[in-house]
Parts: sequence; structure tokens; C-alpha cells
Amino acid sequence: MNYLIKDENSQYYKCGYSCDNAIVLSCENENFFITDSRYTTEANEQVNKNTSVIESSDLAKTTRELIRKNNIFTIAYDPKEWKISDFENLKEKLPKVNFKPKENLTLLQRAVKSDKEISFLKEAVSLGSKAFDNLASFLNKTKEPLSEQNLHFKANEFLTSFGELELSFDPILAINENAAKPHAKPTKNILKKDDLILFDAGVKYKRYCSDRTRTAFFSNDFDFSFAQNFKNQKIQKAYDLVLRAHDEAIKQAKIGMKASELDKIARDIIAKGGYEKEFVHSLGHGVGLNIHEFPFINKKSQTILEENMVFTIEPGIYIPNEFGIRIEDMVVLKSDGAYIL
Amino acid sequence: MNYLIKDENSQYYKCGYSCDNAIVLSCENENFFITDSRYTTEANEQVNKNTSVIESSDLAKTTRELIRKNNIFTIAYDPKEWKISDFENLKEKLPKVNFKPKENLTLLQRAVKSDKEISFLKEAVSLGSKAFDNLASFLNKTKEPLSEQNLHFKANEFLTSFGELELSFDPILAINENAAKPHAKPTKNILKKDDLILFDAGVKYKRYCSDRTRTAFFSNDFDFSFAQNFKNQKIQKAYDLVLRAHDEAIKQAKIGMKASELDKIARDIIAKGGYEKEFVHSLGHGVGLNIHEFPFINKKSQTILEENMVFTIEPGIYIPNEFGIRIEDMVVLKSDGAYIL
Repeated sequence: MNYLIKDENSQYYKCGYSCDNAIVLSCENENFFITDSRYTTEANEQVNKNTSVIESSDLAKTTRELIRKNNIFTIAYDPKEWKISDFENLKEKLPKVNFKPKENLTLLQRAVKSDKEISFLKEAVSLGSKAFDNLASFLNKTKEPLSEQNLHFKANEFLTSFGELELSFDPILAINENAAKPHAKPTKNILKKDDLILFDAGVKYKRYCSDRTRTAFFSNDFDFSFAQNFKNQKIQKAYDLVLRAHDEAIKQAKIGMKASELDKIARDIIAKGGYEKEFVHSLGHGVGLNIHEFPFINKKSQTILEENMVFTIEPGIYIPNEFGIRIEDMVVLKSDGAYIL
Repeated sequence: MNYLIKDENSQYYKCGYSCDNAIVLSCENENFFITDSRYTTEANEQVNKNTSVIESSDLAKTTRELIRKNNIFTIAYDPKEWKISDFENLKEKLPKVNFKPKENLTLLQRAVKSDKEISFLKEAVSLGSKAFDNLASFLNKTKEPLSEQNLHFKANEFLTSFGELELSFDPILAINENAAKPHAKPTKNILKKDDLILFDAGVKYKRYCSDRTRTAFFSNDFDFSFAQNFKNQKIQKAYDLVLRAHDEAIKQAKIGMKASELDKIARDIIAKGGYEKEFVHSLGHGVGLNIHEFPFINKKSQTILEENMVFTIEPGIYIPNEFGIRIEDMVVLKSDGAYIL
């Protein structure tokens, strides 16, 4: 199948290089990486052996010429990847070519990871988890009052190793009731002893993302391990429930299962504990070059789980104006079950 | 004119609020801000008085209902703002409605700034320029060897005031030959005395961006002012030329001028100095909610400069494998000329 790629991570997946002004024409045995003169040197150094770099000052025009030259009459594209204007530029002067929309064309190819990709994801997780340890050590030592904004900034220092690594996404660092918002923005609220602290963060290794969440009781000598002792019994009960849902989902995940079945395992545990409505999001999502990609683990997902898929397991309970809890790990699915990366 | 908005900054410009899952239907006297339940509380608190927030679990469907209910038969949209799939969802079930593509529909509205917007941009510039001073003070004091990556990280600390402000864009911090790449990525190269250092950065104030570049000679007691004394005479000559092009363009900018004429003023100075081919980019770009917006100041731009347009003046000279120089300021155009913000 011949197809056209616009998305940067899809470019990278297919060609080993990407930039913000390129079109990839992917044919049976060859990819054409069409870009402007700013990027051709780097592109030529980095593309894989199946890819030819084509310099162009008019990407759409050059792509049309390549389509004609290679006698292509049917070509697929992902309508989620393309802006209307970019696509119209490409299509308008090729009336004889059949452009076939195929949603998630390259994302679906990327759901099952190669061994090399899994090793990169494992390294990303390992680099990310160090930041959790470093942040906890720092908080155990410091005497300064720190707001969520300050904590967020400190977390970025540890996550990026002071600028050397890239973040997978803007980290979430939320205290107490602010943790009840699944996508909380950091405020000026100050962290105090006996507070609940939720930390959701990840970094990239060779462009592959990690993603992890821990919820902890901030006391003397605290850490981001699973074992937490909250003073407030309501919080502790909810925490234990989320941890059980997390553990059971990982334990029971297996090849051939529908993603919705896996979601149900965690959701049923939380529902039985009385918090069905407070688990407001899906159980998990695939992780790779994108922080969110296939497979999506939710109530409705008909995706069949396959060997070497990598995804998060992240149940949560959110009580507005009180607290929020989420525990998240990335797992890889193997023939004998899911393993935390 | 009725039109549809997808872009977040355009949403914000029109309604006073934006989020990553919304459609705005803008009619003569009213805007409809259509979004899901995660955002409606915040939206209702922040939208301006001409905007109604509509909660929806299916944005396209709700938008279609509003179009029908308001008897709209012609509606404009910017094909650069819309992904094909989002737009098809909206359009497919409204065969009687005439959807009119209008490129840069809201961006063109945003080119001339209000007094309030200018005051926000001025504040953003002022906050950004403090970071230049802070970085210079830090570098004058520190004894540690610092790579471009370390410098980039330090610059981020100063720019964001340790996490309180948002960046306008990922700052560029480049030494010597790395500065010859207009969009250099930070390397592990260490800054040494007598090096050239190029710093291009900005921050946001109330979502409005700043943008500024300085090139400096790193010596004892250095700063990012215009007055620089490079040891290398070739660099000094190029620097003086860039500074003259910058100053003259600002001095000669006036209302009614074509943007291409302004570009030519700077380009001619650099060409006469022998570096025509080494000034590889356009003279400047508008700045507002977007870091790059109208007016674009380049060789071909037919845009007529108007009062209260805000744009950068940023001539540069780039000698591959040797050095790069750029000097950039943001100006606002007034009846008696351009003023640096």
C-alpha cells in the first residue's frame, strides 16, 4: 500500500528522521522524505536505508511529481494527520489519483513494539523513575516552603537531568484537593506535612516516552513507593482500592483479551469499593513515540491485546474538593502476562 | 459573517477562553463556545460577555444543531486550522450549508493590536529581557564549565522565573559555529572565554508572547547589550552590519509601507556589506498570542504596515561552520514610527 505521512512521529517511525516541514511518500519498497533545504543535511545523515531524501522548496508540488513519476493511482492517508489546506494543495492537481482516507493508518502499525522499541521504552521508564526518587530525597531534605509551582519546576529539573532529557509531557504535581482534577495545573498552594501528593510524569529516551504516576503521603522520610500510610482513613481506603485495581489488572492482563475486558477488571474492583463514579477516566493507553497511542484500554475498546503491546495501567479515584489518587505503571504484554517496565 | 474556529489562540482571542477540545461558532452578535464537561466550569468563569458556553459530549453534532437552529446557510472557516477528519465530521450531515474556506480568517483580524494587547506584549518583553540580564549576571559569576545544554536549562530557569511564567518557544542558546544554524539545538559544547554566544528567547504574559535575540562576546563582565567587542574582526564587522540593519529598519519603518519594503531596507545594508546570501531568513514576523503571526516581514510580503501592528526586526548573518549573528527586537508601529517594546 502506498501512503502519505505528515505527522512527525509517524515520519520518524517510518524513516528514522522527522522534521516540522516534511511529507513522506511511503511506497512498497521505498520511502521518499520530502523536505526543504534547512533539513536535508541532517535528514540524509539519519534516515534509514529504505528512505531517499528529496529536497524541495514546494513540498506539495514535489510530492505530486513523485506520485506521477512512480505511476501511483491509489494512495492512502490519515485524515487525522492532515490539515485541510496542506492536503488540498497536494490533491487538487491530481484528479486521476484516488486518495483513500484511513484513520490511524500509521498509529495502528505502531501499537505492537519491536524488541528494540521495548528496550528504549524500558530505559525511558528507568530514567523517569529516578526523578521520582530524586524528588522524594530532595523533599525529605529541604526546609523551604514549596508551592505546587515550585515543586513542578523542581520535578522538571530532576526529570530532565537539568536539561539533558526531554519530557514526555508537562508533569502533573498536585497536592490534596488539587489532585482531584486529573489534569491539574500547578497552583501557589504550599506543600505541608501530612499532605497528599500526586506526581504524574515521564521522560523520553531516543524519542520513546515513559509515563508513571504515584500518590504519596508527605511525612518525614516519605517516598513514592506503593506502601503509603495516610492519616486520613477515607484516603487510605481509597488508596488501597486503587492499588488493588492496579495490581489485579496487571496480574490478569493477557494476550487475546479485549482491552475493554481489562478495563473492566480494574473498574469492577473500584466499583465494589463504592467509587465507580469517581474513577472518571479510562484504565490506560498505549505508549511509544506518542505519549498516548494504541491500544486504548477503556470501557468500549474492542482492541484485542497482542504480544509486545506496551500500555499504561492507571486506575484512579477523584473526590472533588477533597483528594485524588492515581497509581500508574507502564507494562509490556508477553506470552505469559504483563510485566511492569 | 458567521465562522467556525478550532485553533486555541483564535478561540481565546474571540471568547476570552480556550481549551484543547472545543469548537467556536462565531455569529454576528454572539459566540458559542462548544466544549465537553471537563472545561465548562472554567469556561463559564472566563468567557467574555458575548460568548455562551455550550456543554457537549459530541462537539460536531452540537455544532451542527446550533447551525441549524440559527438558520445559518453560509459559514466560513480557515482550512489551515482544521484537520480533515474533524471538519468532515462537522460538514457531512449539513448538505445545504455552504462552507467557505478563508485562509487566515482570524489571524488577519489579530494583526493590529489593541492598546490592552500592546500593554500585555510590553510586559512580556520586559519580563523576557530580565532573563537576559539574569543569565549574564549568572555567567559572570559562575566558575563551572557549562555546555549549551546546561546554559539552555539555566536560561529556562531565569525565563520562567523558576516555573512561574511560560515560555513563548523553546529558547535558542548557541555558541560559535552552532549559532550559524538559525534553529540550533543545544549541544554538549562548553562555553569558554572569547566565545560568541547567541541567545533567542521569550516568555508569555497573559498568553501574549515576547521574542528577543542578542549576540554577545563572552568575556569577563560581559552583557547582552548592543555594544559588543569581538576579538575576531570578521565577526565584529558582521556584527556591526547586523546592528546597523536592525537600527535602520526600526528607524525607517512607517505606516503605509509594504512589509517587503521594510525587509529590503535591512537586506540592502547587509548585501552592501557583502553578506546578502548569508542573511538566510526574513526580516521579521508579527507577535501576539502566536509567536509567529501576521504581519510577516519578508521579501515577498505585500502586507501594508498599519498602526499598532507589533512585529520583530531580526536581521542576521550566518557563516556555516564559523559563526552566526542575529539581533532581534519587537516593535510596535505608531503614527510617528516604530518603537522597541
